[in-house]
Amino acid sequence: MAVSRPTNGPLSGLAITDLRVHSIAIADPPLRSSYGLHAPYALRTVLELVGDSGHVGLSETHGGDTIAGQFAALRERLIGQDAFTLMASLLPLIDPTAAPTGDRSQTYSVPGENPLDVGNRLFSAVEIACMDLIGRALGRPVCDLLGGRARSAVPFSAYLFYKHAGGGGEGADAREDEYGEGLTPEAMVRQAQQMCAAYGFSEIKLKAGVLDPPDEIATLRALHAAFGDGVPLRIDPNCAWSVETSIGVGRALVRELGRGGYLEDPCAGMDGMAAVRRALLEAGEDTPLASNVAVTSFADLPASVSADAVQIVLCDPHYWGGVRQIQHLARLCQTFGIGLSMHSNSHLGVSLMAMAHCAAAAPHLTYACDTHYPWQHAGDEIVEGGRIRFQHGAVEIPDRPGLGITLDQDAVARGRERYRTCAYRKRDDQAEMRKHVDPGWTRRLPRW
Amino acid sequence: MAVSRPTNGPLSGLAITDLRVHSIAIADPPLRSSYGLHAPYALRTVLELVGDSGHVGLSETHGGDTIAGQFAALRERLIGQDAFTLMASLLPLIDPTAAPTGDRSQTYSVPGENPLDVGNRLFSAVEIACMDLIGRALGRPVCDLLGGRARSAVPFSAYLFYKHAGGGGEGADAREDEYGEGLTPEAMVRQAQQMCAAYGFSEIKLKAGVLDPPDEIATLRALHAAFGDGVPLRIDPNCAWSVETSIGVGRALVRELGRGGYLEDPCAGMDGMAAVRRALLEAGEDTPLASNVAVTSFADLPASVSADAVQIVLCDPHYWGGVRQIQHLARLCQTFGIGLSMHSNSHLGVSLMAMAHCAAAAPHLTYACDTHYPWQHAGDEIVEGGRIRFQHGAVEIPDRPGLGITLDQDAVARGRERYRTCAYRKRDDQAEMRKHVDPGWTRRLPRW
Repeated sequence: MAVSRPTNGPLSGLAITDLRVHSIAIADPPLRSSYGLHAPYALRTVLELVGDSGHVGLSETHGGDTIAGQFAALRERLIGQDAFTLMASLLPLIDPTAAPTGDRSQTYSVPGENPLDVGNRLFSAVEIACMDLIGRALGRPVCDLLGGRARSAVPFSAYLFYKHAGGGGEGADAREDEYGEGLTPEAMVRQAQQMCAAYGFSEIKLKAGVLDPPDEIATLRALHAAFGDGVPLRIDPNCAWSVETSIGVGRALVRELGRGGYLEDPCAGMDGMAAVRRALLEAGEDTPLASNVAVTSFADLPASVSADAVQIVLCDPHYWGGVRQIQHLARLCQTFGIGLSMHSNSHLGVSLMAMAHCAAAAPHLTYACDTHYPWQHAGDEIVEGGRIRFQHGAVEIPDRPGLGITLDQDAVARGRERYRTCAYRKRDDQAEMRKHVDPGWTRRLPRW
Repeated sequence: MAVSRPTNGPLSGLAITDLRVHSIAIADPPLRSSYGLHAPYALRTVLELVGDSGHVGLSETHGGDTIAGQFAALRERLIGQDAFTLMASLLPLIDPTAAPTGDRSQTYSVPGENPLDVGNRLFSAVEIACMDLIGRALGRPVCDLLGGRARSAVPFSAYLFYKHAGGGGEGADAREDEYGEGLTPEAMVRQAQQMCAAYGFSEIKLKAGVLDPPDEIATLRALHAAFGDGVPLRIDPNCAWSVETSIGVGRALVRELGRGGYLEDPCAGMDGMAAVRRALLEAGEDTPLASNVAVTSFADLPASVSADAVQIVLCDPHYWGGVRQIQHLARLCQTFGIGLSMHSNSHLGVSLMAMAHCAAAAPHLTYACDTHYPWQHAGDEIVEGGRIRFQHGAVEIPDRPGLGITLDQDAVARGRERYRTCAYRKRDDQAEMRKHVDPGWTRRLPRW
């Protein structure tokens, strides 16, 4: 055993003996956004960080060959290291003073793939696996290693997407279409009702930037009519709108976005967001602007605070530097009166539990978190025991060590096989759009 | 034993079974500041947080009957709690949204005794004891529980004080005067040389606000002449100067404060600090302003950032909410381009090691920390094995569990006896000044 309990004697370590990197593919329905169309498979990377105690720490992050290669290159720096001090030795990966400079907006990057944040992403995945490993070795949940539960269950919102018919996967692996086509206000209300019934969500976000703004406004109005004032609504067009359109939609939806709602990344860039904010305030409307595009790292915060560009940061432990950095961010946001919620990409249960532990430990979490989890299929889950359960729209933090989950190795093997046999190695929503919907489609920003 | 290592089984706790609170007094030399004169004894409170594993977590904070009573009142909320989740249950103590409002400047409070920060101070002391307890039970240093060592040794600076003759203590307990009287530039150079020789410090701070500004300028010039450009100098008059005097001294000492130096709390209030900063910048001089008066909590940071009032935060784990909150603060300061160093009060080895672990874990620590440690006497140290050693002006983080120290219970008993028999129950530097130096003395700000 690696961890002993001397009163004041020599220390015992928890040495890393192996890093296993699994590139997997999971079925993903034809969801739309301003980026284009989700491919039939989403790619994820799963890490197993093995300690000499025999425990294994888990983590999940975005997928594809590039990041898998980056983890492989990092392996040498991990093996033999002490899990308790490993992250300090990797601090150069997230050192902002050594970070590459450049246009930080990830308007044109695939979500969570800002090239300036490569170091943060690698650090994040290793840190989460490391926290899980330590938690398992000590018999403590990850959130307890961060200071304990500020809340015992983490609320998530129903994340609606305009979508074509189809459930994801290809050929013999094509999946049942649980939610059906969703391209009209009526269909989106049905999608919301179905998702809220299944998961108990009581807050709703619409991924927009897909239809003409009047149609998306109509969707929000239909959702508001169906769910009432008690269910906060959000709309996220992923920068598809001009400043002028953003202001117009913001003003049209004051009542629908109401209390607890927000307008997310309506337009591109810090200046655009600040201009929308100013115009809404001048019109007497204080609908807050949320972002996971204008603000994606600590480096973006001073300009955002100074210009009041973003009132809610949608953080993501996968690319902000891991679960400890999110605790720092939460305190920073609380200090500056900025709201905090959590961004999501397509993901499985390992990511979900890392997000949940991270959010559970942050005293300052002001909105239900995002999750794509309802869009993934039970058959693709890699967590032993199957899909994580939601109660009343929330994920309970279990009284189990680490993240509280273990890997179903057969399911991981199936995910690897899906990865090996599918045609996708990098997310490209524009290519999918051209292939399946419109050969001439290009992501134009602003489109409206 | 409380901590076991299940693979995925039920958790085992580390339950708090006792809290022991020791009010102690330690000899303190007749040091001067704008507050007045240090009493012959400084008061400290030492906590022992006992776990059901048999381990004991330590912490030290400021002293006197008031805070001892506050810890006694907190006892019920600690006993029976799990050390890993205890701090989450105490979060209301540091909840800024529930904090009392009012003038946050601690210009007129005894350092570290801002009445608005009572909750932060109690939380801090319990958190540090809790982290020490957990570290001991796990066999890991406290800094490893915070993410690991960003540095393995923490640099401190020589903290010079104008002083009268005398070594502190009273009557039969009067102590040898190690440093002698220090009220002239020549004596202060000798004090600095003696302290740097004994501890290896290579950065120097002068507590000022005691003599007329020209005499204090002369002290800085003499120090600069004696130590050269390679030894950064700082001056801290504790708000004794007007904005105009602050600007004048700042401009007179541009060369002496030089690279790595700073001007600390020259005048009172956020507006005053901002005005000094503006005037110095307008004169082409970017000597940074440090503060542990205008900025003493997270709540002070937005105004300071907005006005560029403080360029270096002198944090203190004793009143910012403990060692985790300092990690949050460090990331916030790094994000906003604010320097970070650490404030000190008169203290013993338990506080010193808490400060060292806390600073060791923070990647962003831009200046050597403050410590009053050289002013305390070896005979008063309560840490087993005696005084903590400095090497090259730094405290090394030992490879021992927790804070790496244990209590010498005989020394604690002597400290309690000193507390019982001395006449002091609350720090009052003005009363001491009237008693020993000038019966009509009043703290006036600005004095110059």
